[in-house]
Amino acid sequence: MMARREIFRGFTNMLRGVRMHSGGIARKQFAKIEESDISTFRKLLGEKSVITNDDSLEFHNNDWMKQYRGNSKVVLKPKSTEEVSSILKHCNARKLAVVPQGGNTGLVGGSVPVFDEVVLSLSSMNKVLSLDEYSGVVECEAGCILQNLEEHLAKHGFVVPLDLGSRGSCQLGGNVSTNAGGLRLIRFGSLRASVLGIEAVMADGTVLDSLKTLRKDNTGYDIKQLFIGSEGTLGVITKVAISVPRKLESVHLAMLGCNNFQQVLEAVAAAKFKLAEIVSAIEFFDQQCSDLVVRNLPGMSHVLETSSPFWVLVETTGSEDSHDSDKLYNFLNYCMEKQVVEGGTVAEGGTQMRKLWGMRENIPMALLKEEEVFKYDLSVPTSEMYNLVEIVRERLKERYPQAGVFGYGHLGDGNLHLNVTCPTADKEAVESILEPFVYEWTAEKRGSISAEHGIGQMKISKLYLSKPPELIALMRQIKGVF
Amino acid sequence: MMARREIFRGFTNMLRGVRMHSGGIARKQFAKIEESDISTFRKLLGEKSVITNDDSLEFHNNDWMKQYRGNSKVVLKPKSTEEVSSILKHCNARKLAVVPQGGNTGLVGGSVPVFDEVVLSLSSMNKVLSLDEYSGVVECEAGCILQNLEEHLAKHGFVVPLDLGSRGSCQLGGNVSTNAGGLRLIRFGSLRASVLGIEAVMADGTVLDSLKTLRKDNTGYDIKQLFIGSEGTLGVITKVAISVPRKLESVHLAMLGCNNFQQVLEAVAAAKFKLAEIVSAIEFFDQQCSDLVVRNLPGMSHVLETSSPFWVLVETTGSEDSHDSDKLYNFLNYCMEKQVVEGGTVAEGGTQMRKLWGMRENIPMALLKEEEVFKYDLSVPTSEMYNLVEIVRERLKERYPQAGVFGYGHLGDGNLHLNVTCPTADKEAVESILEPFVYEWTAEKRGSISAEHGIGQMKISKLYLSKPPELIALMRQIKGVF
Repeated sequence: MMARREIFRGFTNMLRGVRMHSGGIARKQFAKIEESDISTFRKLLGEKSVITNDDSLEFHNNDWMKQYRGNSKVVLKPKSTEEVSSILKHCNARKLAVVPQGGNTGLVGGSVPVFDEVVLSLSSMNKVLSLDEYSGVVECEAGCILQNLEEHLAKHGFVVPLDLGSRGSCQLGGNVSTNAGGLRLIRFGSLRASVLGIEAVMADGTVLDSLKTLRKDNTGYDIKQLFIGSEGTLGVITKVAISVPRKLESVHLAMLGCNNFQQVLEAVAAAKFKLAEIVSAIEFFDQQCSDLVVRNLPGMSHVLETSSPFWVLVETTGSEDSHDSDKLYNFLNYCMEKQVVEGGTVAEGGTQMRKLWGMRENIPMALLKEEEVFKYDLSVPTSEMYNLVEIVRERLKERYPQAGVFGYGHLGDGNLHLNVTCPTADKEAVESILEPFVYEWTAEKRGSISAEHGIGQMKISKLYLSKPPELIALMRQIKGVF
Repeated sequence: MMARREIFRGFTNMLRGVRMHSGGIARKQFAKIEESDISTFRKLLGEKSVITNDDSLEFHNNDWMKQYRGNSKVVLKPKSTEEVSSILKHCNARKLAVVPQGGNTGLVGGSVPVFDEVVLSLSSMNKVLSLDEYSGVVECEAGCILQNLEEHLAKHGFVVPLDLGSRGSCQLGGNVSTNAGGLRLIRFGSLRASVLGIEAVMADGTVLDSLKTLRKDNTGYDIKQLFIGSEGTLGVITKVAISVPRKLESVHLAMLGCNNFQQVLEAVAAAKFKLAEIVSAIEFFDQQCSDLVVRNLPGMSHVLETSSPFWVLVETTGSEDSHDSDKLYNFLNYCMEKQVVEGGTVAEGGTQMRKLWGMRENIPMALLKEEEVFKYDLSVPTSEMYNLVEIVRERLKERYPQAGVFGYGHLGDGNLHLNVTCPTADKEAVESILEPFVYEWTAEKRGSISAEHGIGQMKISKLYLSKPPELIALMRQIKGVF
């Protein structure tokens, strides 16, 4: 018999499932959607919020990476928490499977249906609800798009403590459900640190009100922490309250070239020390990445004439331009004197800044232009970060010289994006060299096999490499509670 | 029958208990410690780690506030995780109740025995295990004293992202178990944001290894978050890994006098904006508090000749002294021009700084010199913070003019410490005016009845005022999982 609240696909449950395809997921004994269900949904939500048109379903059935494709026949777009609750009550009673969906920008196949689940899209719940300027707290509905919230806050002198390449379409509820990482983590810490409250609806329709707007609240177990990063498997987040810092006007950006990864490490250490309170991003990419961006994307060109094996982007954000400028030049001089960088540039003005950031932010897009891409999102101690890239490059060099190996990521946070590209003909052979090697190497370093992208469908079968059996057993039991 | 793993007192379980005294806790059907248990403990840990001497037990049986007193006959001081595990296996099999204890500096009676529990003291597990200077991550055993860790890190140029008045005796495991708040929260956020990993032992002796040292790890439910703030009810934290920021040498401190709370709010808003990236503490206390400190503690004197209804302490910490000094004076000028402060002083040098901080940090000690003290640790939206102090003062003024009403706290975080003192003869009458009023008022503002002190024994019966029944039900079910 199916447990009462198993209508959300859950990575803990799936571990017990039968492997049917590469995603490792078997369709369970859920009911099939019938005409009477559609009628019920129409009654609950109104005609416009029930999408059954094939063309409109297309977006919701495919993931951003085009790796996963579901076959859902209905997308529901509730406009209130009460509507979410009524949907889930019905689905739970009818044993219809449900997949909650935000902006559908995830990279691990977590937000798309696999079979014929009901897609519960939060896109119509997109209002900013309140902003307390004294406390610095904003409340919004889960479907609020990150960039829209950013623009709303900017008018009041605040900023979201989170920034992602997908800012134009990802939603706050999805960001919280996946504990999104991104570009500002080094400054503001994990999103978990900024989320003060959530409202969520459990599978049986129960509304959990944990929508506090307090920076401090030590009253019992912090249940909302379980929802953060649980990828919609415990319930649907409907509202979030987030602590927001002041928007600071002084932003500087430098791009540094290093000859080897030891220099990169020294540059990061220097940035954390010399730019301590103003550093807002430390990113890196290797020469392979910058060459790829220039080769694959029209209109992109190298920032500097000189080439460099490694590029480090250092961004500062502060309240006083002259102070920040002083600090940045002190830092650069220090790096030159200590010979930890070989060269570089400081962006003058917005256009140059966008160009420098563009090199970094366009890497995922440039990778998608290749025939096949293997993407790994790993955390390891910072000093170990690039070793894996070099080891993988070495392993592939002889047998598959056509394969490309690219390393970039959030250097200040120890988060490496290792990407391997190859012709489709080589796909399986290359995969067999990469896996399980990459995951096992990471596990050996006590790293994470998914630093910021989550588990989704892609990494279910690898979870045991990041979590010991006792913790996975607890995950299962906790999933049983919700 | 007792559940297998109920040997830890848990606030969720206690809700079902029979009220026997003001703590609201009934002794359950646990076994009594016998000579054979003591022998077993001696075999497991060695003679020196098993304390049964009455004088030595005294400290462990009493809480810091002298409000709670247990009657424990044995204190165990394991030296390793394996020893903790073996103790718990034995206690679980024998159905002996256990209370984990760190520095025993809590204010809500969470770390002392109530009856005859086995005290599991972490004080002998006090080693710093590692420091990764590239990643900025320290690992230590749970019994490591906060100040000792601070001193160890200082040698390497790092700092703990947590500071408390009890730093000289509180322990890291206790800090994490209670999600301690304190003086640096406005800069580094909740301790939850800095804890990267823990190792814990569950009641049946199972060791949970979640001791990652990664800033980013999105692989499934973050079980360690449940341990943070659970006050030892789910297991015993034995090791912690914490992200540590660079130690910055430039520290400035200003004390501002304000005529009314609206001015205080404006000063905070200005500090968050003008001192954005360097502000490291914003504390406040009212005139009643400063008078009390001077009156009750020998050697203390007023910092300024002029008196002021409100005092705001603003501390900055940065990497470049001249920049910070500029910013601080800009901020002060802004405040004077906008007439949000009436006067104040900037500390010149360490002695003056210690004197200013002394006024704030000695308030709890000065309160303890009064006959009776009612302490409330509340979070409410910042703009509402002082309203409650004034309302309570008004309510008491007529009938109990001898009562003192004191307001101070972590202004930047919306955390109010409301304290009421009175002669012992008036205790019950004053209490009846205060409670449940204070808690209900806080609940009405969607505040927290325990912002940073936790639930312990003191607030079990008030938990329902901060958490809706659905969340309390989930707490119970989760406690059942561990």
